[in-house]
Amino acid sequence: MTTLAIIGCGLIGGSMALSWKKAGLVDTVVGYDHHEHNLKDGLEIQALDKTAATIAEATAQADIIVVSVPVRAMNEVFREIGQNLKEGAIVTDVGSTRETVIAMARKGLGDKFKQYAPGHPIAGGEMPGIRHATGDLFYGKKLISTPTRDMNPRVVDKIEDLWAKSGALVQKMTPKQHDQIFAAVSHLPHVLAYALVDMIAREENAQSKLTMAGAGFKDFTRIAASSPVMWRDICLTNQKAISEELRNYRQRLEELQAAIDSKDAEQIEHIFENAMRNRRGLVFSGDHK
Amino acid sequence: MTTLAIIGCGLIGGSMALSWKKAGLVDTVVGYDHHEHNLKDGLEIQALDKTAATIAEATAQADIIVVSVPVRAMNEVFREIGQNLKEGAIVTDVGSTRETVIAMARKGLGDKFKQYAPGHPIAGGEMPGIRHATGDLFYGKKLISTPTRDMNPRVVDKIEDLWAKSGALVQKMTPKQHDQIFAAVSHLPHVLAYALVDMIAREENAQSKLTMAGAGFKDFTRIAASSPVMWRDICLTNQKAISEELRNYRQRLEELQAAIDSKDAEQIEHIFENAMRNRRGLVFSGDHK
Repeated sequence: MTTLAIIGCGLIGGSMALSWKKAGLVDTVVGYDHHEHNLKDGLEIQALDKTAATIAEATAQADIIVVSVPVRAMNEVFREIGQNLKEGAIVTDVGSTRETVIAMARKGLGDKFKQYAPGHPIAGGEMPGIRHATGDLFYGKKLISTPTRDMNPRVVDKIEDLWAKSGALVQKMTPKQHDQIFAAVSHLPHVLAYALVDMIAREENAQSKLTMAGAGFKDFTRIAASSPVMWRDICLTNQKAISEELRNYRQRLEELQAAIDSKDAEQIEHIFENAMRNRRGLVFSGDHK
Repeated sequence: MTTLAIIGCGLIGGSMALSWKKAGLVDTVVGYDHHEHNLKDGLEIQALDKTAATIAEATAQADIIVVSVPVRAMNEVFREIGQNLKEGAIVTDVGSTRETVIAMARKGLGDKFKQYAPGHPIAGGEMPGIRHATGDLFYGKKLISTPTRDMNPRVVDKIEDLWAKSGALVQKMTPKQHDQIFAAVSHLPHVLAYALVDMIAREENAQSKLTMAGAGFKDFTRIAASSPVMWRDICLTNQKAISEELRNYRQRLEELQAAIDSKDAEQIEHIFENAMRNRRGLVFSGDHK
């Protein structure tokens, strides 16, 4: 009998519970969340089999513990887990930033850090909440494993193995590589989408603008419907890399503004052309081509 | 027998031919394009019934003429149409910018301007080319009609009626309103998406970044696969409004950069929260809710 504890019962935690049960990797799932309604929803969709009133209570009965709370809250969660962890049990997390979170785990878990390994699934959805969880959210999607030298390789292997058996494609990189890559292709786009919707919503004729938005705007801003707290925490825990990408991007926009203002057709087309060629060349998981 | 001439056989022109034929609004479609392969593709998917070697030849036999070329090319196209237009025939265009294009029509068509009415369908796709055309591209989508006082109301009514009968939802506004609204919700997002992909593609570890991109990046940058020439022309013909929106947006990013750099959690969350609430409140055509 393997018991999985989910600390933070949202879309990701709930989808892990469903997919790991479906793959026969765990038998029972116990959930902890400080919002009662998330636990209720989790039981209803049968992602959770039971609930715990405290992190300590969930940890004490679990063989595998998943931390799936907004990343700035992980500090405190790791500390409570460290004080209640069974011998032989293992801990992982699913945070979107790696260097800061691993440092939190190291500090919070103390001498139990040897029972921890990290994992960041590249999957999600803009509609948060365990009620949107599905058992195939991670199927065919990347799982980024970022082990460091002071981790226990057996625990790293075990966590990677669980993900692989549930259908994810495990890829290894350093925490620093991870944070730089995702600052560019995930964190910055979220910041840009939030900034655009916020800007238009504050303009004088906001409603007539938003009502007219078509499919381009819909897709471009989909991620602006994501959880503000989750993404605030990502900005604060991968601050250096995001800050740098944002600075570069603002520089590019300054150049584009100059090209548009001076009606420099050649320069505008040059930028658009390079983007178009690169974008058309990309293949995403789930694409048919 | 009603003959439709499509000047510029791309995704929009081809989709109009298919949907207007399907709705029984036209009997025969003649296509003109300066790329031979577009005409071949158009005949193959049966959007076109025949082709013309010149704009003059296509115009001379048509009752309805649709101009669907990149907007900066419209100047010359309107001039050629004006010299060959049958009495009683009507002309429209589908450009994404309105003030500049209507001025081009006024100048190019001369005393035939009374046979013109504008229309901008809020539909499209990032994959250009008539081979991606479909007969239901405009069904349930908005068609923005921007008549001015010097237009013939009967021609405006006729063009609106054709669109309505093919399933589009006709909405009226002034050319200026149109250009301001779409600068914010369409033109600016395209500029931002192009700028992001161009930036990442030029970075040192571009390929490892692009390979790791997930669903958020995919949707955010979908429009960066759009036609560079089409969007260059939009930037140049709605330059003032786009320039202003870009300037405002850069100001917002400067504020966000300051908030991220100073780790101002409250300010970051405030912006993200406002964007999230507004984005979740939007309903797009085709949505299930």
